[in-house]
Amino acid sequence: MAKRTVRVGLAGFGTVGTGVARLIIEDGDSIEAKTGIRLELACVVDTDTKSERPVKLPQGVLTGDLNRLLDDDSIRIGIELIGGTDVAKQVQLKMLASGKDVVTANKALLAEHGNELYRLARENGRCIAFEASCAGAIPIVSAVRSALTANTIYSMYGIVNGTCNYILSSMTRRNLSFADALAEAHKKGYAEADPTLDISGGDSAHKLAILASMAFAHEIALEDIFVEGIEGISIDDIRYGSEMGYCLKLLAIGQRNKQGRISLRVHPSFIANDCSLARVTGPFNAVSIFGSAVGQVMFYGRGAGMMPTASAVVADIIDVALGNSANTFSHVNLRPRAQTVPLIEKMDNLVSRSYIRIMCKDRPGVVARWSKVLADHEVSISGAIQHEDTGPDNTVPVVIATHPVREENISAALDGMEKLDVIRGKPICIRIVDIPEDKD
Amino acid sequence: MAKRTVRVGLAGFGTVGTGVARLIIEDGDSIEAKTGIRLELACVVDTDTKSERPVKLPQGVLTGDLNRLLDDDSIRIGIELIGGTDVAKQVQLKMLASGKDVVTANKALLAEHGNELYRLARENGRCIAFEASCAGAIPIVSAVRSALTANTIYSMYGIVNGTCNYILSSMTRRNLSFADALAEAHKKGYAEADPTLDISGGDSAHKLAILASMAFAHEIALEDIFVEGIEGISIDDIRYGSEMGYCLKLLAIGQRNKQGRISLRVHPSFIANDCSLARVTGPFNAVSIFGSAVGQVMFYGRGAGMMPTASAVVADIIDVALGNSANTFSHVNLRPRAQTVPLIEKMDNLVSRSYIRIMCKDRPGVVARWSKVLADHEVSISGAIQHEDTGPDNTVPVVIATHPVREENISAALDGMEKLDVIRGKPICIRIVDIPEDKD
Repeated sequence: MAKRTVRVGLAGFGTVGTGVARLIIEDGDSIEAKTGIRLELACVVDTDTKSERPVKLPQGVLTGDLNRLLDDDSIRIGIELIGGTDVAKQVQLKMLASGKDVVTANKALLAEHGNELYRLARENGRCIAFEASCAGAIPIVSAVRSALTANTIYSMYGIVNGTCNYILSSMTRRNLSFADALAEAHKKGYAEADPTLDISGGDSAHKLAILASMAFAHEIALEDIFVEGIEGISIDDIRYGSEMGYCLKLLAIGQRNKQGRISLRVHPSFIANDCSLARVTGPFNAVSIFGSAVGQVMFYGRGAGMMPTASAVVADIIDVALGNSANTFSHVNLRPRAQTVPLIEKMDNLVSRSYIRIMCKDRPGVVARWSKVLADHEVSISGAIQHEDTGPDNTVPVVIATHPVREENISAALDGMEKLDVIRGKPICIRIVDIPEDKD
Repeated sequence: MAKRTVRVGLAGFGTVGTGVARLIIEDGDSIEAKTGIRLELACVVDTDTKSERPVKLPQGVLTGDLNRLLDDDSIRIGIELIGGTDVAKQVQLKMLASGKDVVTANKALLAEHGNELYRLARENGRCIAFEASCAGAIPIVSAVRSALTANTIYSMYGIVNGTCNYILSSMTRRNLSFADALAEAHKKGYAEADPTLDISGGDSAHKLAILASMAFAHEIALEDIFVEGIEGISIDDIRYGSEMGYCLKLLAIGQRNKQGRISLRVHPSFIANDCSLARVTGPFNAVSIFGSAVGQVMFYGRGAGMMPTASAVVADIIDVALGNSANTFSHVNLRPRAQTVPLIEKMDNLVSRSYIRIMCKDRPGVVARWSKVLADHEVSISGAIQHEDTGPDNTVPVVIATHPVREENISAALDGMEKLDVIRGKPICIRIVDIPEDKD
């Protein structure tokens, strides 16, 4: 086996960057033994060259000067782990312009500017590898792009944000409020100082944009994705849903129907307690994919964290060093935006079951009032429970599960119910997602 | 994107071969759109050129003459789906000698002669791609070899034989006897006419040999693997185990400890009801892997069948066509047998918990007798239940769970118990496997 040294430059010495440096430095022998590639960390660029990190870099490797990386022609691969979309974009553009292949974990940047960056990389005869951008340790990008290439992918259902899954699991299993579960996630390092991007569903949407573009072979933009976060979730709804056999998850869902229409959405979802994704708890991620030839496949693992994400970054570095990424990248063919846009299904047309909670005044004739509103909008009820809990103003919670109905009708029915004087506040509505488990 | 036509020749037109032909012929446009590769099925070779298959080959493609494939220099890739180890080996050798890369799903052949074939392929500057050899639709070979390359893999636990999992699931869920469950598996197409290779554990051992060689970067041979099948499993033990919180699976287990010692085994295993692999039922496969950087990852999907396996074969064909397989293959570095053999742990040294069932005569002093035998061999009891069922000769079943103990001690204790006149027949012993779930 030919042995080869490949020099790489790392921009961004935060958590994942530190993990990547550790793997290259501490596990270099084992990587070389397995692959024949000796990785050499030529430089690590960060504005913060002072803070202690849990890795010992060789003398002179750490620098504040990006040009050390860009101007060194012996560096073949640039690793962008800065994050964010401004500086990181400039850094990737400069890496590509200076003839380097790029490895990145930057889902926000790829979701927002991926199509532009991919095009530029191709024009420069370079590649961008981004396995680490989606679901950390889980090799889901390569699964979608390579392993399932002989399949028409019908749908994917992903738990792709560990922060949200940790929070929802803690609420479900330990009856914590959203605020307490978030505080605990902070303490355990499962939530960022500012968790907005995670709990708003934005981060899941970034990953869905990347995965859906590979799965459906279309240029996808964030605006194609309907997004709802978990900020408003109450422990009551988790409890009532659980009594009906459901478990609450923030799902990223991509579907394509027989006519080629594409539906992309991220929202809190009640799923059956006995389906595979219901068992994915804590900070773990999982993605279920349904393909024409394979049926269902599911991938499970840690979706974030220093070493799991670094593992995906280093696997990509090796893949780039071997030349595989360039081969795959140069052949990936995404249909352009102009072809994508007309195929994106409007959320109003989504047909879904729903869980609805209303706080009703406890007096005669109330059921007739709200059930009439549902009937007027052709929303058919599959189950309803009036709970004996008491809410503000002596209201009682009534929980309704609907049959499949168009989103447009549900929205109109919710508006109608909100206007009733026997109902207090806005009705709560959470979609029920029936994941089609592949069975023998 | 450059478009390219790649001509392939298929040897073996059975179930999987038919699936591969279908994907190439019926999904060729979609594969080309996604990858830029137009696959052309130049010939299909089989001794049976008469039987109807559910695919329509172009006129003149089907032939009984292997030389049509070998002598055609425009065919770059030979697909060997004949199965077995004799003819198939000759065919692969001829494909390599005539300058073709090989794609195969033949686990038996690779497990028995893989090391020799890999070497020959390399000497010819060719590659062998074999994703489809392990766990059908699940991209587990590429996960182990590429995605996890920055990890030291500590262990893997696989349900890699759909026939056995279907049988054990039916016994567990529907209380069927082994014979009835096997008959049903036959009827549903989940068992071969001669199921010996599956139920004996041999097929799982083939897959473990392939996966362990990639995971541990060592040449592994079948003789390194301890194998026990599920032929002897009684519904009683499944029931008693279930009462103790366990579920019975045929597991393929590969472990490497800190000293580099490798333990490889396939046997019926009681695993905790709440662990991920316990939920893998019917013909499905799943593999849990524990790596130094990623923690736990798990992959789940259909492990066999026409289209799932064909999906993996075609993904490999594309990978070979793109040049990726050659890159990866030429760099895979397995330590030779001479280095492997001294590292293989003897089964006697395995430390494991066990489930033991003995059929005891129902008379005073019996417990003292068998418990003394266990104590004499330093087998410590973690739990025991005497069931009220009645066996032959008025015996009663006593079920014992042990603390971790060396296999050698358990074997000696079982021999000792068998000799007791208060025990009827051979004690039943099933290993309990504690899979270290990765938790937050």
